Amino acid sequence: MLVVMQEGAAEESVQRVIDRLVTMGFTVHRSTGTSHTVLGGVGPMDNFEPAEFEVMEGVKECHRIVSPYKLANKRFRPQGTVVEIGKVKIGGPEVVMMAGPCSVESEEQISLSAELVAKAGAKVIRGGAFKPRSSPYSFQGLGEQGLKMLRAAADRNGLLVVSEVMDRSQIALLSEYSDILQVGARNMQNFNLLRDLGLARKPVLLKRGIAATIEELLLSAEYIMSGGNYEIMLCERGIRTFETATRNTMDISAIPVLQQLTHLPVLADPSHGVGKRNLVAPMARAAVAAGADGLLVEVHHDPEHALSDGAQSLYPDQFAELMGQLRGIAAAVGRSV
Amino acid sequence: MLVVMQEGAAEESVQRVIDRLVTMGFTVHRSTGTSHTVLGGVGPMDNFEPAEFEVMEGVKECHRIVSPYKLANKRFRPQGTVVEIGKVKIGGPEVVMMAGPCSVESEEQISLSAELVAKAGAKVIRGGAFKPRSSPYSFQGLGEQGLKMLRAAADRNGLLVVSEVMDRSQIALLSEYSDILQVGARNMQNFNLLRDLGLARKPVLLKRGIAATIEELLLSAEYIMSGGNYEIMLCERGIRTFETATRNTMDISAIPVLQQLTHLPVLADPSHGVGKRNLVAPMARAAVAAGADGLLVEVHHDPEHALSDGAQSLYPDQFAELMGQLRGIAAAVGRSV
Amino acid sequence: MLVVMQEGAAEESVQRVIDRLVTMGFTVHRSTGTSHTVLGGVGPMDNFEPAEFEVMEGVKECHRIVSPYKLANKRFRPQGTVVEIGKVKIGGPEVVMMAGPCSVESEEQISLSAELVAKAGAKVIRGGAFKPRSSPYSFQGLGEQGLKMLRAAADRNGLLVVSEVMDRSQIALLSEYSDILQVGARNMQNFNLLRDLGLARKPVLLKRGIAATIEELLLSAEYIMSGGNYEIMLCERGIRTFETATRNTMDISAIPVLQQLTHLPVLADPSHGVGKRNLVAPMARAAVAAGADGLLVEVHHDPEHALSDGAQSLYPDQFAELMGQLRGIAAAVGRSV
Amino acid sequence: MLVVMQEGAAEESVQRVIDRLVTMGFTVHRSTGTSHTVLGGVGPMDNFEPAEFEVMEGVKECHRIVSPYKLANKRFRPQGTVVEIGKVKIGGPEVVMMAGPCSVESEEQISLSAELVAKAGAKVIRGGAFKPRSSPYSFQGLGEQGLKMLRAAADRNGLLVVSEVMDRSQIALLSEYSDILQVGARNMQNFNLLRDLGLARKPVLLKRGIAATIEELLLSAEYIMSGGNYEIMLCERGIRTFETATRNTMDISAIPVLQQLTHLPVLADPSHGVGKRNLVAPMARAAVAAGADGLLVEVHHDPEHALSDGAQSLYPDQFAELMGQLRGIAAAVGRSV
Repeated sequence: MLVVMQEGAAEESVQRVIDRLVTMGFTVHRSTGTSHTVLGGVGPMDNFEPAEFEVMEGVKECHRIVSPYKLANKRFRPQGTVVEIGKVKIGGPEVVMMAGPCSVESEEQISLSAELVAKAGAKVIRGGAFKPRSSPYSFQGLGEQGLKMLRAAADRNGLLVVSEVMDRSQIALLSEYSDILQVGARNMQNFNLLRDLGLARKPVLLKRGIAATIEELLLSAEYIMSGGNYEIMLCERGIRTFETATRNTMDISAIPVLQQLTHLPVLADPSHGVGKRNLVAPMARAAVAAGADGLLVEVHHDPEHALSDGAQSLYPDQFAELMGQLRGIAAAVGRSV
Repeated sequence: MLVVMQEGAAEESVQRVIDRLVTMGFTVHRSTGTSHTVLGGVGPMDNFEPAEFEVMEGVKECHRIVSPYKLANKRFRPQGTVVEIGKVKIGGPEVVMMAGPCSVESEEQISLSAELVAKAGAKVIRGGAFKPRSSPYSFQGLGEQGLKMLRAAADRNGLLVVSEVMDRSQIALLSEYSDILQVGARNMQNFNLLRDLGLARKPVLLKRGIAATIEELLLSAEYIMSGGNYEIMLCERGIRTFETATRNTMDISAIPVLQQLTHLPVLADPSHGVGKRNLVAPMARAAVAAGADGLLVEVHHDPEHALSDGAQSLYPDQFAELMGQLRGIAAAVGRSV
Repeated sequence: MLVVMQEGAAEESVQRVIDRLVTMGFTVHRSTGTSHTVLGGVGPMDNFEPAEFEVMEGVKECHRIVSPYKLANKRFRPQGTVVEIGKVKIGGPEVVMMAGPCSVESEEQISLSAELVAKAGAKVIRGGAFKPRSSPYSFQGLGEQGLKMLRAAADRNGLLVVSEVMDRSQIALLSEYSDILQVGARNMQNFNLLRDLGLARKPVLLKRGIAATIEELLLSAEYIMSGGNYEIMLCERGIRTFETATRNTMDISAIPVLQQLTHLPVLADPSHGVGKRNLVAPMARAAVAAGADGLLVEVHHDPEHALSDGAQSLYPDQFAELMGQLRGIAAAVGRSV
Repeated sequence: MLVVMQEGAAEESVQRVIDRLVTMGFTVHRSTGTSHTVLGGVGPMDNFEPAEFEVMEGVKECHRIVSPYKLANKRFRPQGTVVEIGKVKIGGPEVVMMAGPCSVESEEQISLSAELVAKAGAKVIRGGAFKPRSSPYSFQGLGEQGLKMLRAAADRNGLLVVSEVMDRSQIALLSEYSDILQVGARNMQNFNLLRDLGLARKPVLLKRGIAATIEELLLSAEYIMSGGNYEIMLCERGIRTFETATRNTMDISAIPVLQQLTHLPVLADPSHGVGKRNLVAPMARAAVAAGADGLLVEVHHDPEHALSDGAQSLYPDQFAELMGQLRGIAAAVGRSV
């Protein structure tokens, strides 16, 4: 780590920083320039807040130089991680499509959904049984009954299942029915949940929080990995900005940035990213053009009667048309859908 | 609710919206203007996403006109809520000070802390036993042992206790030791936790998430209240913006805005709002000047050796000096500290 | 416009709003529901601040229902605007590439640049002669001399020229040398400049400000159009958010949103959007996949010695490779490059 | 400046960075640690983009260590700048009140305004003659005629005048009538204007742009100062965030942060910060409590008929009441109003 002293900082202040660094276990290297003194600390894990030093007398700024995440770091597995579940490989040359309704609503709905997404080429069906809703008066999901319907519909159509786990108490139940455990944006920093997922034996799809930096997303992945579970997929789904024309602003650039920083596969969820059906296809295309390893798309056989997120669910024929466009785009960047 | 049709929207499109509204249980009132048709829907709870209508053919925009929260609404208790715990009244004329270290670290540390904050005039001691940390490698708190120390130190000094509950599984334990259950910013939309807190019999201090709108904060309060627990305090603690000079941008205007919208007491946490010790006092003063009903301030007897958040913890004498300034400011706005 | 009164608003308050509306020239239509009274005003141009009504006693909220921009509105020219300059058509089936260095630096540099971008397939060369720089000590551009070099290099290679006008006093000069007048992000709300550009007889490329909403961008276009100049291209180039991994967050979704709201062509500038060379190609591809009508890309024959923005300038071979990928993507969405 | 190489960066990459630094005039100091190589460059003005180095092969990150502004830096005048205009001193112990209508509308309006703000204790009258309006169809100000009225009204009441200059072409005219030249938020990075103001002989009130970082604000002050005009006041007036309950989010913490970084006086404009009258007083109080050297407040004798910004203008009696509260708060922080 590096501590830059203010111009003209007193020798006493410099010494106080050095002492503190040494106490913390750092070997300190001092460079005295014409205007600034810089202290370089070589030490154990860079696991401290730079602000701790920045409030010290005479200190101008402090920078970590070692990434605060290790296992999620690209250097840990430079060749990249491919999450393999049955015949599906996420993180390989194929852009994997995960599609389905926001919530499991009924036997019929999920059956129709599974059929239509499988037919269009998706490999994984999505569908929530436990729904995080901002109003306590909204539909909250069918629970275990919904999971059973989802599993059965997936099996009939040769699909994998991804479904959201809202709380550590649901991990065991979800693991019974779902191939991939999804952590929603609001839970990206539910550290108890992350820790327990580290002990689970299921791949995890970790969504970026709407106000989470890319570094925080990687730290949350690190939480899970530090428990021993390395099968993680990251997912960009929109961040909160001042623009209100869309529900969130989908940060497409997070896709290539993440691919430079980590070995984990990077997915994108255009449905939550924009919140309106007619913007989903352009953003899905953009994500694949930018290099996403997979997409999570909401599709409903009858969006106007969906119990949640109908506005952002594609009609079946829109989804089929989108799949065609994505094949062309994937080819242009050397991949397949 | 109001649906504004696009200029020149086809009659067919208008009819489709009317039909949908009627199906949902709304009585529809139609106004046809020179350029726009507006549909007013009077109905049950406004518990739907305006986007659902905005994606319909011919619709320009849709507005909710009934607030999505009822119990948290000012109209529910126009006289305001005063949370009374023993002799302490939060939401009354006194600005209530809650202070203490970020984490409980040791018997000695928490004893010294309790003494010094009590002496300076605080009524409640804060201190975490379970810490949400963005890195899995950081100090995670002392757990129940920490709670015991905290309770004992508070009792010796006639203080109440506020401590954070990170997970629904911790509610029972926390309730044993703490007078107020704090929900941290990262858990503001942990709906399972909120729901269970609605059944708890302890006042809740609910912090605003760093990317949460004021409306979302009120909806989270509604979650708890809908379970029957009306003893809630809201707390502004900084939102995430583009500015990096401070850890977060403390939204001081949220204090008067909330006081117009809700009957619940509104607190402020300047320590997390700015993240650096030398900015805490100005922001604490600003919050009281803007009308806050209480403050949550981090104080440590030896901040440079704090195990967490040392950079934003006040030195004991800084806290005492701040208390003096706050007395003057409170008086200028007709209150006391 | 619509004014929603608070639940239980006094009749007196309702009357005061009605009186004010009538005074302003609105015909008022009143709907009294079970809980809320709604006033609909049909009137002249919706050219007022809704906040003016929202601060009135008893008012809950106020919504404009007529867009504040007319000429920039899609309805004004539903068939879309194609800006034709010589043989180049912007807004038609072809995705038009504009490329070149950030600044004109020398005769040799701009000659090499023009050659290489023309060869790779660009139709327009970009290059600044007047540079808005956040530090007064940075390179500020070559001025008219730079424009001469740029024009000559463009002519030798059959290219059009786009260059930035920083101030109304520069319009005449720029018009002499440049085919398209660029308004930079920092000037998007320089209303004097916009007004004078409305009187110019040159197409304008208007960049979105880093904190500008999509509606504000359209209002700025309206400023120019209200002066009689309808040849405008809009350009997304990144907005400011909390994320610091990229210089700005490129709002790819603004492309389809704008295409729904306006008839004007929509371009994207991935170089400024991300600020780092290795992210430019993925974002350029994303923009075309999302439907952009053209791109503005920084290319330099020797980026490490560029006098400005070298970090985001592509190497010549990177640009050529990108052009190949864009051809594939454009084809997949029914267009050409 | 400091360049941190990636773990395991090739010696060749290190050499390339060293060569580049040397070419730019830096003396390079190399530290090789167990995992990272760090290069410290001591050189001339730190006037480069760190991104230029961050895109080089093998580089992890690059930090400037010398501030990019010199004249605006606190170290340039550690004792602080007091802007003296006649008997008014801005930056001294008194918190200076500047108040008045958004726009000059008529002889009568501005006369009444001057009288009322003088009587309540303001020292400076504000009022716009040239108005930056986001819609081309809004009231644009009375121009020179307005300035004349404003000057006359100010003189009759012993007030100074502050008024906005929108364009470099208006500097001479404004200088004739106004004691302080205001640069609006939208012009904070209108570098041609800033440069010309550096040559003007009038104090400048520079507002922070709604998306400007604190560092950018100081760089804009540096632009003016580098021309020789050191009489500058900075003004916080709200930044753009995701929260829509207020027009902007007033960044109160910018006040103490600026006071640590610069010697220039720091003002606050609560009216634009929040956009609604009933929030102005709490924010004005907060700004003074946080240490502001002065306030800019909109007051109108008849806000409901104001031609611009009526919603955020105080009624005369609200202003008088606010002045009373501010006196109490100023006293509590050792100042006067």
